[in-house]
Amino acid sequence: MSNFGFTDMRLVNPYEVAFREAKSAVKSGYILENAREFPTIAEAVADCSLVVGTTALGPRALEHPLRRLEFAARAVRKHLASARAALMFGSEKFGLGNDDMAHCHWLTRIPTRDEHGSMNLGQAVAVCLYELSRSPAAARQTPGERTLAKAEDLERLTGLLLEMLAESGYVHARVAGSTELKTRRLVRRMNLTAHDAEVWLGMLRQVRWKLTGSK
Amino acid sequence: MSNFGFTDMRLVNPYEVAFREAKSAVKSGYILENAREFPTIAEAVADCSLVVGTTALGPRALEHPLRRLEFAARAVRKHLASARAALMFGSEKFGLGNDDMAHCHWLTRIPTRDEHGSMNLGQAVAVCLYELSRSPAAARQTPGERTLAKAEDLERLTGLLLEMLAESGYVHARVAGSTELKTRRLVRRMNLTAHDAEVWLGMLRQVRWKLTGSK
Repeated sequence: MSNFGFTDMRLVNPYEVAFREAKSAVKSGYILENAREFPTIAEAVADCSLVVGTTALGPRALEHPLRRLEFAARAVRKHLASARAALMFGSEKFGLGNDDMAHCHWLTRIPTRDEHGSMNLGQAVAVCLYELSRSPAAARQTPGERTLAKAEDLERLTGLLLEMLAESGYVHARVAGSTELKTRRLVRRMNLTAHDAEVWLGMLRQVRWKLTGSK
Repeated sequence: MSNFGFTDMRLVNPYEVAFREAKSAVKSGYILENAREFPTIAEAVADCSLVVGTTALGPRALEHPLRRLEFAARAVRKHLASARAALMFGSEKFGLGNDDMAHCHWLTRIPTRDEHGSMNLGQAVAVCLYELSRSPAAARQTPGERTLAKAEDLERLTGLLLEMLAESGYVHARVAGSTELKTRRLVRRMNLTAHDAEVWLGMLRQVRWKLTGSK
């Protein structure tokens, strides 16, 4: 919960031993400290205008509308912009019962392989909260941290590489023209950052110095 | 891994006690049974043409290009269409070291709150594999299971409701026209499925029978 910025944990009839142990664990943090216990689900979700249950079951076994997590998360995000919503998880062993689900407006399911009945509870919570806080825009964006090398540096690199190849006897005069084109394309395909281009230029200058100096 | 359909688990230098215990656990399944151990990372990823490391660190602490998970998953999916890729996780306590990361083409990070150094390993794996198998189209689709009620049923429902309101003395003749419009809109806002409309019609018919029969 804390990883994804959710802080309001509410428990209904938790297994007291496990809950006390978790609370007293090192670094349990403010979410567990501030978790509230309620005697019933009705009381736990009383101030929420959207209640979404989670289930591992397919639509045929359910009396509720079921939405795939990707779609459900979009609906919950929209709701959260102006009101409070609850995401409800059942116990690790049994999930939510019919009585619990009756408090839900609808249910959501993490799309997993059909062969699987259920998921580990902690992992299911993590995946749901990840999807809730997921940025749809991020998948379409190329990361901005990479500053690509300028063409003049790539051309300088191409020149050095060709010089080195000629010097070392790799290039025959007969095919020098086609080698130049091939090398130019090869360097462009490296998709170098400005920094890596600098490193390459430094290395090749050193090699050239060695090649021409040792003649 | 099994939840999201990934089967090829490779371990480098695992903590043998925990690994043996996990393997012998009930229902450990074929993934753990078939997990292979390698002495070095180089050997574990030898047949992969893309190696992606996972990290909780920000870009400033890293010597590698770092991609947000949403973007990273798209790139890995593309690669997986024609070739093998490895997703590399470090130990729960320390994550991947610099020596491990040097085997990676680039790194990915689950976007979490900056205050957090790391995530639970099992949860991090679940979130990464969820994103890898995530369907981008699903977020844009409305689920198809909901068959909405036809207008004629909604109109029948509106009529019954109005009859009931008139019968019960709720509607004054003076405002009957505006009540009709309000009720019609109220029924449309219920966004009823065909099935739920049937249920409502049945209930209201019963109430009408009671109201008019007991006069």
